[in-house]
Amino acid sequence: MSRSLGSIVEALGGQLHGDAHALIQRLAPLSTAGTHDLAFVAQARYASQIETTRASALIVPPALQAVAALRGACIVTDDPYLYFARLTQWWRAQHEPRPEPRIDPLASIHPDALIGEGVDIAAFVTVGPGARIGAGARLGSHTVIGAGAMVGEQSLLHPRVTLGERCSVGERCVLHPGVVIGADGFGFAPHKGQWVKIEQLGAVRIGNDVEIGANTCIDRGALDDTVIEDGVKLDNLIQIGHNVHIGAHSAMAGCVGVAGSATIGAHCTVGGGAVVLGHLTLADGVNISAASVVTRSISRPGHYTGMFPIDDNASWEKNAASLKQLNRLRERLKAVEQAIEQATQVTPKP
Amino acid sequence: MSRSLGSIVEALGGQLHGDAHALIQRLAPLSTAGTHDLAFVAQARYASQIETTRASALIVPPALQAVAALRGACIVTDDPYLYFARLTQWWRAQHEPRPEPRIDPLASIHPDALIGEGVDIAAFVTVGPGARIGAGARLGSHTVIGAGAMVGEQSLLHPRVTLGERCSVGERCVLHPGVVIGADGFGFAPHKGQWVKIEQLGAVRIGNDVEIGANTCIDRGALDDTVIEDGVKLDNLIQIGHNVHIGAHSAMAGCVGVAGSATIGAHCTVGGGAVVLGHLTLADGVNISAASVVTRSISRPGHYTGMFPIDDNASWEKNAASLKQLNRLRERLKAVEQAIEQATQVTPKP
Amino acid sequence: MSRSLGSIVEALGGQLHGDAHALIQRLAPLSTAGTHDLAFVAQARYASQIETTRASALIVPPALQAVAALRGACIVTDDPYLYFARLTQWWRAQHEPRPEPRIDPLASIHPDALIGEGVDIAAFVTVGPGARIGAGARLGSHTVIGAGAMVGEQSLLHPRVTLGERCSVGERCVLHPGVVIGADGFGFAPHKGQWVKIEQLGAVRIGNDVEIGANTCIDRGALDDTVIEDGVKLDNLIQIGHNVHIGAHSAMAGCVGVAGSATIGAHCTVGGGAVVLGHLTLADGVNISAASVVTRSISRPGHYTGMFPIDDNASWEKNAASLKQLNRLRERLKAVEQAIEQATQVTPKP
Repeated sequence: MSRSLGSIVEALGGQLHGDAHALIQRLAPLSTAGTHDLAFVAQARYASQIETTRASALIVPPALQAVAALRGACIVTDDPYLYFARLTQWWRAQHEPRPEPRIDPLASIHPDALIGEGVDIAAFVTVGPGARIGAGARLGSHTVIGAGAMVGEQSLLHPRVTLGERCSVGERCVLHPGVVIGADGFGFAPHKGQWVKIEQLGAVRIGNDVEIGANTCIDRGALDDTVIEDGVKLDNLIQIGHNVHIGAHSAMAGCVGVAGSATIGAHCTVGGGAVVLGHLTLADGVNISAASVVTRSISRPGHYTGMFPIDDNASWEKNAASLKQLNRLRERLKAVEQAIEQATQVTPKP
Repeated sequence: MSRSLGSIVEALGGQLHGDAHALIQRLAPLSTAGTHDLAFVAQARYASQIETTRASALIVPPALQAVAALRGACIVTDDPYLYFARLTQWWRAQHEPRPEPRIDPLASIHPDALIGEGVDIAAFVTVGPGARIGAGARLGSHTVIGAGAMVGEQSLLHPRVTLGERCSVGERCVLHPGVVIGADGFGFAPHKGQWVKIEQLGAVRIGNDVEIGANTCIDRGALDDTVIEDGVKLDNLIQIGHNVHIGAHSAMAGCVGVAGSATIGAHCTVGGGAVVLGHLTLADGVNISAASVVTRSISRPGHYTGMFPIDDNASWEKNAASLKQLNRLRERLKAVEQAIEQATQVTPKP
Repeated sequence: MSRSLGSIVEALGGQLHGDAHALIQRLAPLSTAGTHDLAFVAQARYASQIETTRASALIVPPALQAVAALRGACIVTDDPYLYFARLTQWWRAQHEPRPEPRIDPLASIHPDALIGEGVDIAAFVTVGPGARIGAGARLGSHTVIGAGAMVGEQSLLHPRVTLGERCSVGERCVLHPGVVIGADGFGFAPHKGQWVKIEQLGAVRIGNDVEIGANTCIDRGALDDTVIEDGVKLDNLIQIGHNVHIGAHSAMAGCVGVAGSATIGAHCTVGGGAVVLGHLTLADGVNISAASVVTRSISRPGHYTGMFPIDDNASWEKNAASLKQLNRLRERLKAVEQAIEQATQVTPKP
């Protein structure tokens, strides 16, 4: 199925240069685009690729209009990346019209659950007593909605999602396969060398427009709730401990771990594999690099990193061995400085 | 639903100061407790919060009895945290009485499986031939019990747990959603640049009173079994490789990885995101900090750490660059020391 | 069930020394083998264990034939580890003959799906419209095959695997429980402090003879496909971002994260918990140590590491504190060198 450049601009705006009737068969990356494809160039530093791409048409910022128009059709817009994002949404809606909602006869829905208008429920879904599914929501196969849980309108739960009892998901959320919302937080009291379970009596509350990646886990609170605010985006295989609070529009890449009772501000980003220890507070606008370990609260927005630089193994071995003597090296350096000072009456100055 | 202070002390002990008829509506953290809530104070350093909390009643140690009694009702007990843990268990039992066990007609149970007394099996569960489910055990929806697998009495498998063939779980265990017990260990023999699979013929044996968090994986042994002893607590998204042995009452936080054939002692703790390499041995009572990588066996109990300290990104970049020359710095320092020694006939002494 | 040494050699080759009629009851590790067990010794450095093992028979390389034959039966082969791998496969086939394939009546298979000859489909599987399941493939219970997805011949999808729409898996692959193929890649365009979703229009293409561990996730591409080539082996709880390309016969241990658009060569290995950042390229034959973070492309084969060495916590604290002043230490050292040079007219030489 193809769409004309004209229909794209009609739907999404932008200034078209070129033939409005030209047909686009595929959205494609600049480097692999073919002769019937539409690609985007967000930044001037990719301008050199404009000359070599085989794309039929390009989405470009005003600064690249001249060079793009030289080679063929283009759509000019202030923010090509944003335009492209909206284009993917429009493209999907055009090509994969949502089927009529239905409730599969192989779903197991408790008679005391409330199912809204136009809800789609696939085979082998279970919905517990007192659960409420908002209008237009979709539940993929094998998804489990616990007793008293709530799914907001137009939310999409892919197959094999677990939403624990009394937990809630807002509107227009997307939860990917294997997500577990509302497993017990990790809480035990030590007693005579053993662990006594602290029942986790809280729940999880998730705002609107939240997306949660495959196999990510968000634990229920011990007493109060774990809270994920509006617009948060979590990638795959992330662990969110009990009583964590994540502020609006923060985003985390895959394999991040956030320990219990951490409070993360709004508009934060956390890189893949990073760890945030428990009971810490991160201010709004904090960016944590991949694989960094946040061991203290951060009160100012900014970019923070802590990660051992990779090296060839032989060099790493030498430096790692020296690292174990680093404090000792510092003391030796101080002694050297003092020896020089005594010998020359002059303090070395870096 | 509320409970009186008197009924709590009757069930759990402790010394009540105040009105036994006062009703508690909720267990709450000290900081967010409301006027009908019960909170606990475990340590004297939180004493200052006693004056500001709005909690109706407090659980406190003897040292805080005086200050707590000044402001209202309190329960005095030697270990408030332990008391609180038991209180959460009692509270849940009071408020969520276990429903009558039933076997959902939509479960798929092999006729050669042995199902004990009072077992509860939800919809879409599969139980393979030769599997045995102990009395009072509960299997959440979509849980898979492989051929010849065993679940001990009173264990709770939440929805979407997989227990592989011939694997066993002890009594009173709790397995959270998405847990995978008994996937194949990662074993391949290299041959002409390719990998030849080593079939994993062992199983997984899990003791009593073990809790396993959401989406955690424990692989089956290659020949012998992977073993998790009594009372072990594993958080979410943990990977336990084949032939690992974890001693009794050890606990691991989220996102830990333990490579194959590692032997971890009893009463150990491993912080979130830590990695234990394969074929190592950790003594009883070893504590590993979060995000640390255990690259060698540890024979003495104690606290071990290895983690790059986080910093603002600009500082980190400078220090990380220097780190790659650390061994060279050490050599330069040695040269300086020798130069001073030659010049002054005196060895600098830190 | 036991097998004679003769039948093993007949099936797998090797030179038998000893009684061909001797019966083997179990394959076992050298250290725990009993008197009816068969164990292997791959390397001469384990020769000392040959004298103490209770194994009935041993698989050994020619160099150990003499010492092994002294104590009893042995099979001599050039590569005992490879022999052992093939033996486990033969052993499993002997002891667990594959049951007759059947399609469980409780599976939900779309009438427009194409199911090959001899396919086995367990209870509660869903197969979407247009999906194709190759001859001899097996789908474990609760596995989800999306619309238009493809499973190659003889592949084994364990219970609770999700294969997203339009994604494909080659022949003879093994996917363990909880695997998610084809969840959306993590792509959002920032706009006024919020995130606008980029619909992920690509798919995932997986070659032949690929094995994927429990709860591992491979995201679909944004526009082009994510590609896993033939013979790749991925352990549990691995995250593969969108548009990643993994070359043939590469292997990754548990908990690895590979960010979007990374290109990893053939015959690479990545240790457990390592992170590969996005848009990087790793040459063929690169080996990354466990828990290392790959922050730049690597163009030469070799062994690379970056990991903070573990230490007792007190020592770590001192060295980590010094690390934050490392760049400053370097400047101080330079000043010292200059002071010595000025004082003595001699540059210190390491």
